[in-house]
Amino acid sequence: MRQINIGLLGCGTVGTGVAKLLIANKNLLTARVGADLNLKWVADIDIETDRGLQFPAGVLTTDAQRVVTDPDVDMVIEMIGGEGIAKDLMLQAINNGKHIVTANKALLAAHGNELFATAAQKRVDLAFEASVGGCMPTIKSMRESLVGNHIKSMSGILNGTCNYILSKIEDEGIPFKDALAEAQRQGYAEADPTLDVGGFDTAHKIAILAALAYGMEINLKDVYIEGISRITPLDIDFAVQFGYRIKLLAISKIQDNKVEARVHPTMIPLKNLLASINGTVNAISMSGDAVGDILLYGRGAGMMPTASAVVSDIVDIARNILSGTVRRVPPLSYQRESISRIPVLPIDDLVTHYYFRFAALDRPGVLSKISGILGKYDISLQSVQQKGRKTNGSVPLVMLSHRAKEADVKRALAEIRDLNVVSDEPVLIRIEDDELD
Amino acid sequence: MRQINIGLLGCGTVGTGVAKLLIANKNLLTARVGADLNLKWVADIDIETDRGLQFPAGVLTTDAQRVVTDPDVDMVIEMIGGEGIAKDLMLQAINNGKHIVTANKALLAAHGNELFATAAQKRVDLAFEASVGGCMPTIKSMRESLVGNHIKSMSGILNGTCNYILSKIEDEGIPFKDALAEAQRQGYAEADPTLDVGGFDTAHKIAILAALAYGMEINLKDVYIEGISRITPLDIDFAVQFGYRIKLLAISKIQDNKVEARVHPTMIPLKNLLASINGTVNAISMSGDAVGDILLYGRGAGMMPTASAVVSDIVDIARNILSGTVRRVPPLSYQRESISRIPVLPIDDLVTHYYFRFAALDRPGVLSKISGILGKYDISLQSVQQKGRKTNGSVPLVMLSHRAKEADVKRALAEIRDLNVVSDEPVLIRIEDDELD
Repeated sequence: MRQINIGLLGCGTVGTGVAKLLIANKNLLTARVGADLNLKWVADIDIETDRGLQFPAGVLTTDAQRVVTDPDVDMVIEMIGGEGIAKDLMLQAINNGKHIVTANKALLAAHGNELFATAAQKRVDLAFEASVGGCMPTIKSMRESLVGNHIKSMSGILNGTCNYILSKIEDEGIPFKDALAEAQRQGYAEADPTLDVGGFDTAHKIAILAALAYGMEINLKDVYIEGISRITPLDIDFAVQFGYRIKLLAISKIQDNKVEARVHPTMIPLKNLLASINGTVNAISMSGDAVGDILLYGRGAGMMPTASAVVSDIVDIARNILSGTVRRVPPLSYQRESISRIPVLPIDDLVTHYYFRFAALDRPGVLSKISGILGKYDISLQSVQQKGRKTNGSVPLVMLSHRAKEADVKRALAEIRDLNVVSDEPVLIRIEDDELD
Repeated sequence: MRQINIGLLGCGTVGTGVAKLLIANKNLLTARVGADLNLKWVADIDIETDRGLQFPAGVLTTDAQRVVTDPDVDMVIEMIGGEGIAKDLMLQAINNGKHIVTANKALLAAHGNELFATAAQKRVDLAFEASVGGCMPTIKSMRESLVGNHIKSMSGILNGTCNYILSKIEDEGIPFKDALAEAQRQGYAEADPTLDVGGFDTAHKIAILAALAYGMEINLKDVYIEGISRITPLDIDFAVQFGYRIKLLAISKIQDNKVEARVHPTMIPLKNLLASINGTVNAISMSGDAVGDILLYGRGAGMMPTASAVVSDIVDIARNILSGTVRRVPPLSYQRESISRIPVLPIDDLVTHYYFRFAALDRPGVLSKISGILGKYDISLQSVQQKGRKTNGSVPLVMLSHRAKEADVKRALAEIRDLNVVSDEPVLIRIEDDELD
């Protein structure tokens, strides 16, 4: 039976999961692929820790160079993470003609254009299903199943840590910092949670997906990013009163060859399926001109779900090798000559619906002052509520706007902030609701 | 640019959609595939009707033989439907070395083993993504994205007509026949609705999916099939009181090399995502040993969503042709030598939870009689409710069982039916709830 030789770089959580799956489900993989997927090397700086795996002698090594230079290695699985050594080793492997499988969204979002160009030049495959949405078949669905569709938009819950925290704030009415602490205790959040709760991890993913969807170069720097640390139980309660739930969404749309790509807490209607996705799971909705909407749901992280996606890439490449072909599907979904730079809409040019909450002193004329300023900037309101407990002499004044332009909203909020009847920073949360005017 | 020649057999709803998509999104497909997907033939017995499409001269034909025998045709898209002429033409095309794309679940469920064997012998591809779940990437996800997983179970809402009718009964409290009439008025149900509401269409789909999941021959005849025509607003109301919703589910599981494959109305917990899938859409949940659960959601029927799935198959085959390969992924997910006959569990051997409703006369001792008979057959109860309006002297007596064996349940119900204190046929609905004892 034909043997495909695999070199694994990095044996942390996901790397260990990949090794486990290749070993535990070896017979299954042989029955499906018709070849022996042979784990020839497992390289890690730590080869002492017991990972619950019995590798044959000589498989474990601390020498990553041996893996990327071994002429018998068909593909290299990069599970190191980060942008430093991972990138160097990946480029070396590509230059040595190895195919690559990676789950490294940070690296692809920042240096994908260079990496994909090198892989194209060297005629190797570069697969990355596990970089977005864990075990969900996000990349394959967009690139292959929706191939006949103009992708018009997508919105996704792509970070399980944030979704867990938001669910926790809502279910228990606790502040962000307590929900974060609980996520850390449960092992769902890192000691330094910035990458997750700051929205950066989600931004990496939407930068990759937008490139695939529209045939554009990867453009992380123009993605608007806002995290969840300012979300309060109070805003979540108001959201429910308006029929919404707050989710950290990655949103991307294309219209008139302008792309929206943004990550921020978003109010979505309770009847939207994404509003029902609670806890650490991920989900993404994609809209195409032929399919309408499709939605995928699954575990977005964790050892075995992510390993499952990595193994699907390993098999895809193995099948190319067995078929005597390479780069059968273009990695970024479009032929290279069809990929262009498409501008990303600056957030100031965004036109959407807004939820505002002001801590307003309970005095006559306050509402008139605030709505007057909003009106001056062409922001018209469809709903106003003033209720709830008085805190430090102010009550929450909540407003839902009709469609307005973000730049106008910013100017209006800056002016309102300076009113002496408004204490605290105004709260702004964007709304995605197709049924609003 | 390389040209791939496509022959379309059957230009009804889905066939027209495929032609529309290939024409409307031609530039997009070229940018993604790097080849010209050329619709060389469109064969239909009716070439007079205006389908809103302008074909070049000579494309339309009434002569299907020209399509399946044309040496320039690379692949034949079978959109005729049914098991007669569709099968003959498909076999002819395969024997002439043409690759096949089809959405014909009835044909594959009944004659798939023969068709796949012939395609294997003739070394052609036979693709069928659109046969299950419309635009949802069901086949590709199971065969490629979950390739590293032992599929343990799946359950799906795979017939939009039934799901629309059940939603309608629940939302409006109307009887089945009125909901069906409304579905027919809306164009969601055929004049003869048996294939849909009888559960047969859903059975075709689960027969195909079970084969893909477990590496077994397609076995339609052993799938248990029960339709939705006996579902009443009363049972839907009781379901909600117990925290359930009733859906027509296709269910398949494997345990100890025994396969369950069954289609019947099923009570599922309201918090299960499938319970939130209302109206004409489809959804499927698949469980694998590495991924846990993933769920797909999308339109299960309709011209353009189904066409989208067909075009994804066309592109898959085109990419094989352009790569100089064929049968890169085994059509039934496993290498042919690894496909075996796996027995399907007879429904009498099923062990699950049950909902019973009896029309019981409101007299002392009735409950004791009924529960006595159930006890005699080893059926123990976890919940009993007797309430609601008296109709013809009887009130609904509703019971939820612990796990019981279907054969025992049948015997018990036959005995209870004969009691003189029970009017009407007893109602039985199976429950899928992992949290029950």
